[in-house]
Amino acid sequence: MIPGPYLLYLGSANEPLSAKTARGIAVWRPGAAIGEIAEPGCTVSVGLPRMTIADSVAGGARTLVLGFANAGGTMDAVTVARVLEAIGAGLNVASGLHARLCDVPEIAAAAARAKVQLIDVRTPPPLPVGTGDRRAGRRLLTVGTDCAVGKMYTTLALEKEMRARGIAADFRATGQTGIMIAGSGVPIDAVVSDFLSGAAEWLTPARDDDGWDLIEGQGSLFHPSFAGVSLGLLHGSQPDALVLCHEAGRETIRHTEIYPVPDLALCLERNLEAGRLTSPNVRAVGVAVNTSRLQGDAAQAYCLAVEDRLGLPCQDPVAMGTDRIVDNLIACFAPSVPA
Amino acid sequence: MIPGPYLLYLGSANEPLSAKTARGIAVWRPGAAIGEIAEPGCTVSVGLPRMTIADSVAGGARTLVLGFANAGGTMDAVTVARVLEAIGAGLNVASGLHARLCDVPEIAAAAARAKVQLIDVRTPPPLPVGTGDRRAGRRLLTVGTDCAVGKMYTTLALEKEMRARGIAADFRATGQTGIMIAGSGVPIDAVVSDFLSGAAEWLTPARDDDGWDLIEGQGSLFHPSFAGVSLGLLHGSQPDALVLCHEAGRETIRHTEIYPVPDLALCLERNLEAGRLTSPNVRAVGVAVNTSRLQGDAAQAYCLAVEDRLGLPCQDPVAMGTDRIVDNLIACFAPSVPA
Repeated sequence: MIPGPYLLYLGSANEPLSAKTARGIAVWRPGAAIGEIAEPGCTVSVGLPRMTIADSVAGGARTLVLGFANAGGTMDAVTVARVLEAIGAGLNVASGLHARLCDVPEIAAAAARAKVQLIDVRTPPPLPVGTGDRRAGRRLLTVGTDCAVGKMYTTLALEKEMRARGIAADFRATGQTGIMIAGSGVPIDAVVSDFLSGAAEWLTPARDDDGWDLIEGQGSLFHPSFAGVSLGLLHGSQPDALVLCHEAGRETIRHTEIYPVPDLALCLERNLEAGRLTSPNVRAVGVAVNTSRLQGDAAQAYCLAVEDRLGLPCQDPVAMGTDRIVDNLIACFAPSVPA
Repeated sequence: MIPGPYLLYLGSANEPLSAKTARGIAVWRPGAAIGEIAEPGCTVSVGLPRMTIADSVAGGARTLVLGFANAGGTMDAVTVARVLEAIGAGLNVASGLHARLCDVPEIAAAAARAKVQLIDVRTPPPLPVGTGDRRAGRRLLTVGTDCAVGKMYTTLALEKEMRARGIAADFRATGQTGIMIAGSGVPIDAVVSDFLSGAAEWLTPARDDDGWDLIEGQGSLFHPSFAGVSLGLLHGSQPDALVLCHEAGRETIRHTEIYPVPDLALCLERNLEAGRLTSPNVRAVGVAVNTSRLQGDAAQAYCLAVEDRLGLPCQDPVAMGTDRIVDNLIACFAPSVPA
């Protein structure tokens, strides 16, 4: 879908979370990108060689991927100029911002002249209204105490762990980075709200191979800006299993000042409560915690405390893997032995 | 915004709910429409004279208003043909369907030739991402056990009752019919989902005149297709007061077969629980029940039973008015007397 290899554009990102698209590609598709490029104010790196657009073309790059995210998803003048430079050098451009490349007249005209592709991954396909009809297959959804707590990473880590055990499992992307990593998906926050649940149903149709769809969650039921997205995705997903994602030490909901991050037990209970509407037997199978703010043994201690309190395996997918969560998933959904 | 008077187009509607846009205009804007027009299969009327397009033009009509709704909001060939006929006769056309008039090439071309307006009320204005920031003013939101249980009607009836008492109160429309009645609003189900709460914040900005914004609710937290819309609207509205809307005798969620209409107490509790995220002191002030399926004294008995159970005034806005709900609203939000 997106011609590789990529040059990852970090823009003016000055905190790691703002570059999560670039980071996700660097981590989950090693080799897909040959370098990164950034504006002078940028303080972030995803560990690839810094290069100019000319360098990247010389090195074989075929697509400039806009690898940053911002609230509202706008495209500023600096970004437009950089995109025009890339097009002029013969690169395709892929973007997951709300503002579409193809809607900027100079960009559209330049791409037409240069005969390069503009790929707006945040433009959803035509979608149906949700039906709520029960469907076959097994589905796991990651849900969160907040945005940007590691739902995509956790979902991809679960896929890797399950596949390593020979279990059919497929990451289903719902965000810009996930779609760039998976090569397909539905940008759930760009869907017209009437079609929210329908988008999740469309993304994860019935399957009968005993495999799992692992659905990348979005937002949080406790985020005052985005909870509607989370609920529509939860209902449309009809998940059999939930994994709760959280960042240890985060106290305030992202992009707000007055909203506390919810208690994990409360957050999980609300997700189960809402999830039961379309999936009456939905159950939680684990907790994934980003412990990157904790030092030394504190991460392990934090996870043990969560585990004791919630009665679910709790791991940091980055530092500890997801093996115990997958063990529990398998135990919970083992085929029942006839008496 | 929409040039009047109107000719209301009922399409092939064969149940009263399908013509709710036309009915809403007929009821709440008496005199705004001079007639109705329908296809042969239509079994519904909104009580206006049936007329041809030529008749309506002779009678002074200026706009054909598409007065029906359908799941998905599509425009079929019969509708396109009727719209083209209207344009050919010099009428403007207003539509609240998801499918936009201006996106149908023949319609766009015909309107340009005839120099008439195409008004797609379901195309939202540019909107901000929600912030969750607390804002001044008093807001009431209608919430429902299901779609199409009378939330718009109830909200308009509350506006009428409050204005009759000299209270500043303004209906804030969130659906196609409401927007056509109010002349402005935001089509919440057509908003890109990332902007759901932001749309509600935009619709009801801070106000400091002690008046009320009365916000037309949409969907239901218990509707498997549309709960995300309802939650985004609830969070963005930051309501001080909720009125729960319900249709007596409805057993199954609209457009589904397996989803029961929720218990009223449970539905209210879930709305209060979710609403507290952005409006910690939100409270329920009344229940509005559509009792049109009940005979004789059964309606009164039904409302009394709800009232006993929930401890809130319960009325059918059509049959009984909303005076007792407004009494309770005033009592709940009376200025506190200094000790």
